[in-house]
Amino acid sequence: MDRRIREHAEVLVDWSAQIEASDDVVLAVGEGTHDLAVATAELVGERGANLVATYAADELQRAYLRGHDGNFDANPAHELALVENADVYLALGGGRNTSALADVDAERRTAYAQATEAIREARLSTDWVKTVHPTRSLAQQAGMAYEEYQDFVYDATLRDWEALAAEMERLKEILDEGSEVRLVSADTDLTMSIEGRTAVNSAASVAYDSHNLPSGEVFTAPYDTEGEVCFDVPMTIRGERVNNVSLTFEDGEVVDVSADQNASVIEEIVDTDDGARRLGELGIGMNRGIDRFTDNILFDEKMGDTVHLALGRAYDANLPADESGNDSAVHVDLITDVSDESRLVVDGEVVQRNGRFRWEDGFEE
Amino acid sequence: MDRRIREHAEVLVDWSAQIEASDDVVLAVGEGTHDLAVATAELVGERGANLVATYAADELQRAYLRGHDGNFDANPAHELALVENADVYLALGGGRNTSALADVDAERRTAYAQATEAIREARLSTDWVKTVHPTRSLAQQAGMAYEEYQDFVYDATLRDWEALAAEMERLKEILDEGSEVRLVSADTDLTMSIEGRTAVNSAASVAYDSHNLPSGEVFTAPYDTEGEVCFDVPMTIRGERVNNVSLTFEDGEVVDVSADQNASVIEEIVDTDDGARRLGELGIGMNRGIDRFTDNILFDEKMGDTVHLALGRAYDANLPADESGNDSAVHVDLITDVSDESRLVVDGEVVQRNGRFRWEDGFEE
Repeated sequence: MDRRIREHAEVLVDWSAQIEASDDVVLAVGEGTHDLAVATAELVGERGANLVATYAADELQRAYLRGHDGNFDANPAHELALVENADVYLALGGGRNTSALADVDAERRTAYAQATEAIREARLSTDWVKTVHPTRSLAQQAGMAYEEYQDFVYDATLRDWEALAAEMERLKEILDEGSEVRLVSADTDLTMSIEGRTAVNSAASVAYDSHNLPSGEVFTAPYDTEGEVCFDVPMTIRGERVNNVSLTFEDGEVVDVSADQNASVIEEIVDTDDGARRLGELGIGMNRGIDRFTDNILFDEKMGDTVHLALGRAYDANLPADESGNDSAVHVDLITDVSDESRLVVDGEVVQRNGRFRWEDGFEE
Repeated sequence: MDRRIREHAEVLVDWSAQIEASDDVVLAVGEGTHDLAVATAELVGERGANLVATYAADELQRAYLRGHDGNFDANPAHELALVENADVYLALGGGRNTSALADVDAERRTAYAQATEAIREARLSTDWVKTVHPTRSLAQQAGMAYEEYQDFVYDATLRDWEALAAEMERLKEILDEGSEVRLVSADTDLTMSIEGRTAVNSAASVAYDSHNLPSGEVFTAPYDTEGEVCFDVPMTIRGERVNNVSLTFEDGEVVDVSADQNASVIEEIVDTDDGARRLGELGIGMNRGIDRFTDNILFDEKMGDTVHLALGRAYDANLPADESGNDSAVHVDLITDVSDESRLVVDGEVVQRNGRFRWEDGFEE
């Protein structure tokens, strides 16, 4: 077995999920993730924790959903009891075909998601962590060779997470104390308020309320957005390729949308509801192990030298306890490259210039 | 997908487990059984039942058990809750290597089994069914080519179960009314009492309290055994090949053991405890879809034209409610071919001769 699989499992079990003796662990095993599941099971055993492995195969889910008439029982007792009694929930994504659910109609999927809402809530109440095993199907989605993609995933995942968490903490402090963020680059000049909001140091560990491995971003919930922004990172959104999406904001709301390709997808999104016209997230990617876009949001939005903004719903973690943030049925991330001709400015002070942070060598104001 | 996989799933879901709308179903998916799991998931959906799939991979279990220090928590809450809330438990065996657990020491396995006793009890309280998917690893164990083994498994599994259940009911009635069974063949002349015992019609369905697919045997719990029996079907017991095991019984207990090969394995078994010297089961195989021995007890003991006897523990289902049967830590089946020069006699009347039953054409007393 590739020694990196074992190292990946170690990061997952010890840094991300912080598994301890007697924890009741659910391990959701995607298709094609057997080797990572085996390495993880061994470590769960070594920590003296208790293991139930579930088979999270998309093809099984497809067969079940298509077989069913769509009138689903609400929160089946056996599954709810499993998840409610779990301390930790580890999801190993991967699969053998990222389109395995393509012929399940959206209504059926939505009905199932709604019927199992309490199960999802129970899962989100555990120390849950989502990661991926580098399968051939994900390599294909990324347009990469299999071994090349393995290197990519492990470069992103096998970081010195403690050091990165400490660096991200610096940015979090700046954002927590700041009132206004301005993002400037060739086609972008955008101003947002962050007064009163709390940034999350997303350091790929439940200790930081961060549930993705890899992670490596600091994010907060902006409001009162004004100006223009161009997202120059190509992405697939709702199955459509979009590129160079430009948004114009006035009084916090999108008033104009353009794009080189499929602008209609973005127009549809901003028309979903009132909240979809406002931003829910400002995120700054700081994982320099991620060195290219792979059309997978788990990686893309964490990439060093990028900033992403999400239309729609804000995360509670960014808000004061008594305040509700931007509400919407959607949360759609868009990404911009800030490695060149770019500045991130907080309350008039440049924090990041051309991808370099204020505390790094070579930073010049 | 081979249409027989779908048919196998239909027998499993409808005949064996009798799954109905809103049943909470656990589907334990062994390695290499993905296709049968997909077919089963679709049918569970069609019946309107609820599905949790677990990943029952031997390699995962090996890694977990070897990683752990052996001091297992008793009945982890999440797993216990899952099983206690399940109505149906379907286990799909198969695997990629029947020796996958070979380097887990026996003490570790026993400790785990003891710690999870309540979970096993809860599982046995559901409508549970165990079947196998014809994997290459099982084909290898059987000494058969892959496609040849697929034919073998489906011939055994895709029976007219209703007709077979009706035929087995005839034998059950004879055994229920009978007092004494005598088995005679070339090297065998054995007499057992079955007075007061109830035979089980093992028709591969929970409706018959029968939990193996395939099944196809009628069994009861004999006692006061006298005489000699030779088991001419070669088997692997505790990892050792045994052949032509001969046992001599006096006053219900084994007094002499011999064998062409590895007699010591059988001697060890009868020395386990007092109950291990007595019989716990007399079973008559009636599944004529099974036409050869494959060194897999799930199939071998159900084969038409065979009789098996088990040393050790008797099943409660064969006993009156107020009576406890033969008790032992072991239950070891041994099989004899009755297709030739053989008679099964109940209270002086020949019930089976050379593999033919009394009610079949061509039977001559």
